[in-house]
Amino acid sequence: MSHDEPSLALVWETFTGYQRTAAVKAAIELDVFTHIGTGAATVDTLAAQCHAAPRGLRALLNHLVMDGFLTKDGERYGLSATAAALLDRNAPAYLGSAITFIASPAVMQGFMHLTDAVRRGGTAIPDEGALAPEHPMWVEFARAMTPLAGMTALLLGNLLEVEQAPGWKVLDVAAGHGMFGITLARLNASVHVTAVDWKNVLAVADEHARAAGVAERFRMLTGSAFDVPFGDGYDLVLLPNFLHHFDQPACERLLAKARAALKPTGRVVIVEFVPNDDRSGPPDAVRFGLVMLAGTPGGDAYTFAEYQTMLRNAGFGPPTLHDLPPSPARVVIAQR
Amino acid sequence: MSHDEPSLALVWETFTGYQRTAAVKAAIELDVFTHIGTGAATVDTLAAQCHAAPRGLRALLNHLVMDGFLTKDGERYGLSATAAALLDRNAPAYLGSAITFIASPAVMQGFMHLTDAVRRGGTAIPDEGALAPEHPMWVEFARAMTPLAGMTALLLGNLLEVEQAPGWKVLDVAAGHGMFGITLARLNASVHVTAVDWKNVLAVADEHARAAGVAERFRMLTGSAFDVPFGDGYDLVLLPNFLHHFDQPACERLLAKARAALKPTGRVVIVEFVPNDDRSGPPDAVRFGLVMLAGTPGGDAYTFAEYQTMLRNAGFGPPTLHDLPPSPARVVIAQR
Repeated sequence: MSHDEPSLALVWETFTGYQRTAAVKAAIELDVFTHIGTGAATVDTLAAQCHAAPRGLRALLNHLVMDGFLTKDGERYGLSATAAALLDRNAPAYLGSAITFIASPAVMQGFMHLTDAVRRGGTAIPDEGALAPEHPMWVEFARAMTPLAGMTALLLGNLLEVEQAPGWKVLDVAAGHGMFGITLARLNASVHVTAVDWKNVLAVADEHARAAGVAERFRMLTGSAFDVPFGDGYDLVLLPNFLHHFDQPACERLLAKARAALKPTGRVVIVEFVPNDDRSGPPDAVRFGLVMLAGTPGGDAYTFAEYQTMLRNAGFGPPTLHDLPPSPARVVIAQR
Repeated sequence: MSHDEPSLALVWETFTGYQRTAAVKAAIELDVFTHIGTGAATVDTLAAQCHAAPRGLRALLNHLVMDGFLTKDGERYGLSATAAALLDRNAPAYLGSAITFIASPAVMQGFMHLTDAVRRGGTAIPDEGALAPEHPMWVEFARAMTPLAGMTALLLGNLLEVEQAPGWKVLDVAAGHGMFGITLARLNASVHVTAVDWKNVLAVADEHARAAGVAERFRMLTGSAFDVPFGDGYDLVLLPNFLHHFDQPACERLLAKARAALKPTGRVVIVEFVPNDDRSGPPDAVRFGLVMLAGTPGGDAYTFAEYQTMLRNAGFGPPTLHDLPPSPARVVIAQR
């Protein structure tokens, strides 16, 4: 992004950014991309398939052409390469469901009160935002983020070389959809996984474990990750997308608890948005700090330097930082 | 926008688009850009000036660097060229206030129910959305959009060569902030303006007329543009950003009423987002069709072909279409 010339277009695009979110969300909810994926279509044929008014659909489809998700040739609409690969429910890499969480009323609510959150330095949503026990938002999260997490989990499995692992015992903390632990178990039949999360959320992970055929190596511990006893002797403790919800003292308490559950050669594996130490990039990692401000009392997108401090304070050895291209996620690994 | 390669970045950017809107809105509400405009600043100095928590401000400022509105040099933040020209309250071209309307709860509400609007082919907001009499949203609109409208009105004055006008009598329909008529009066001391709008909205236009020093040539008619008698003998009837709220039969009724108010050589001047006839662009004009779907029962961003039909049906001569660069607005002009 050049900062050299004033850009009215940048201002307008940002002021109306929420409209592009709403347009793609409506298209996913109406399954527009999936219907078009079965063959280029006109407004009238799609209106019948999507149970929508032609007038409404026409406005939506034309917007999506401008946004880069559809193509238009005369009266017929088709999918752009992006929509074909990522937003058609029949595509192997489908991740449209993520909108159900990323732009859910619960997450958006924090941004509706962002000015107040900046004033007070933490979420302006009552009841400590989404961190209340059994908050239904996390069931929604578990279902919505499964495809995106599945992709990241495969990349993590590669990084950890799990296929060569000698019968790892894995603890997946705040497992949610369970995809991180389940994917490791799926990639290596000697891996055993214990997943921790609220009971309502683990029901989703349980479904996924059965679907992946790893149910007999998948055990569940229900409750708060801060309170439920983890047991011990684990080779890996996974902390995927969890620490960002909490302030540093809470992270250190949880890391110390994770460390106590590891065998002496065991490792903690943290999957996160990790901005550079001066928070100058990468863009999505830096932006994620604002998501945490909007939605949590004390969470953040922590830098590697901050993870180094927290891990040292929790008793771990020096950590390493790893990228997971093409995912924006990064991995911090430290040995007990 | 290339459609050739699947882009996870495009999907992520669109899914989170509402977060960029919220970030710039919070910055404008806290006057971050104006404070930084007085000198590059650190989080701590800005926190004091903006009455915000350093922790909250840090997350916001770093987000805005990623979004192209701020620069960062060590611990000091500065304005990008875009923010300096358009978002600093002390800049002559300041238009930050527009966010107060574009991302107001009233406008956003329609997008929160966009899927329903697409299904039914019109706004899913009760009470006919924003078209209810004296809806407070239009007072907000009038205040928020004044700077942007003032810029467009100057461009319109140029297009109409108002400085050479021989004492025009101008009717400004649904005047809102009044900036279109007021600017014409300001550019030529022989121009007289009559502004029509709800009483609560015209209070804002009245302020602007006084501030512009044209109050004695500025008259007001309060009420619905569809009902209040316009009088007659006008040289120009302005319809700035108004017809898009209504369906075509209603537009034709209003155009016929406007025509009856014109002297024989008089012209109607319509300022609008006007997409190309196949709605393949320009992007912001096409997208505006969805804004009308989300917020109105039967409005639209009409094409020039549609304006030709409506104007013919209302009795006008053949219209001409004009651009107003660098504004995205276009102008349709037809003679009685």
